Amino acid sequence: MRVKHKKWAEPLLVAHPEKMVLNPSEVKGQWSDRFPKDQPIQLEVGMGKGQFIIGMAKKYPNINFIGLEIEKTIAAIALKKALPENLPNLQFICADGAELTDFFADHQIDKLFLNFSDPWPKKRHAKRRLTYHTFLAGYEQVVKQGGSIELKTDNMGFFEFSLQSLNNYGMKFDGVWLDLHHSDENATNVETEYEHKFSELGQPIYKLAAHFDS
Amino acid sequence: MRVKHKKWAEPLLVAHPEKMVLNPSEVKGQWSDRFPKDQPIQLEVGMGKGQFIIGMAKKYPNINFIGLEIEKTIAAIALKKALPENLPNLQFICADGAELTDFFADHQIDKLFLNFSDPWPKKRHAKRRLTYHTFLAGYEQVVKQGGSIELKTDNMGFFEFSLQSLNNYGMKFDGVWLDLHHSDENATNVETEYEHKFSELGQPIYKLAAHFDS
Repeated sequence: MRVKHKKWAEPLLVAHPEKMVLNPSEVKGQWSDRFPKDQPIQLEVGMGKGQFIIGMAKKYPNINFIGLEIEKTIAAIALKKALPENLPNLQFICADGAELTDFFADHQIDKLFLNFSDPWPKKRHAKRRLTYHTFLAGYEQVVKQGGSIELKTDNMGFFEFSLQSLNNYGMKFDGVWLDLHHSDENATNVETEYEHKFSELGQPIYKLAAHFDS
Repeated sequence: MRVKHKKWAEPLLVAHPEKMVLNPSEVKGQWSDRFPKDQPIQLEVGMGKGQFIIGMAKKYPNINFIGLEIEKTIAAIALKKALPENLPNLQFICADGAELTDFFADHQIDKLFLNFSDPWPKKRHAKRRLTYHTFLAGYEQVVKQGGSIELKTDNMGFFEFSLQSLNNYGMKFDGVWLDLHHSDENATNVETEYEHKFSELGQPIYKLAAHFDS
């Protein structure tokens, strides 16, 4: 996701160390200290403007959520949106998701969300896709034994790639939906901004839920 | 697939024992004797009216093909269509695909095709779907080590089920296509009757290629 640079973004990030972590490797192994309640931690890699992770934090107070976003301006938009909500079970990281294993001790994460990740459609960019096997190895290290990934996208090519990549990695599928918004699974769906916009245009939303088979 | 019963069907099947096998368990272990050339055997379970398997036999003379169909009238339609083509690398079976392991010795089949199988959409009928794990176990027994399945369907629910079922069985995906007719993979696609009809209506055709990981 790209947005215009906003002058207020970086000062806002810096002004809220209680909510926004800018040096996540310094918190490695101590994430539960940043939440009042000791409960499972679920992580969204690439949270964008935060609608999904804020919605999840509201809906599931018995889970701790972390939203990670690499772009400072976008992370600041999410932070701005989250501050008035006063959600003790929500934390943010502004950093590169490729370095996840530097931010989390092994097996600290209950579940990981990938929503509308950049599809990187060119073959020579396949390594950048967040479901490329090198990323999956990182996820496997930070999630608990048998931990799961939930992925949503509107991009057909990215979904085809992800189905094959997660399968080839040895992950086991818990559910596949080729038109999420017209399925039973939609009853519990929390939308992202992007998802809301695209599903209104009638495009199908794909979802895959899978767990590591270890 | 259901069609009206045709009086000429059964006599035609019986009149062509050189092409149509009605008691396939009697041929178990001896299928290569029914082909002039000793080359890999590929099998379509549920060939319908035979357009796909006849097309494949024409296109790939260096492969032996077997088309299996449970319904006598439909098998007879395929036979009627195939006879004038004089394809030495094509054989038919009229019998129940659920009994595949009675028809073939272990590891005799190179590749197996499932095209537009009955989706059995009701949950209580899931066991009848040709990608239910009990069927996969039969396929694994008759295909060679690392043998593959290629599956096409226009039915979203059946495709979702099949992706999960083949994955959960431990099969490895070689390719997933969510809109086959608008993909590069379509260049080598051989259509079935049903596929031709439905893709003309603009419905996407799904394809999955996967192999047993043994």
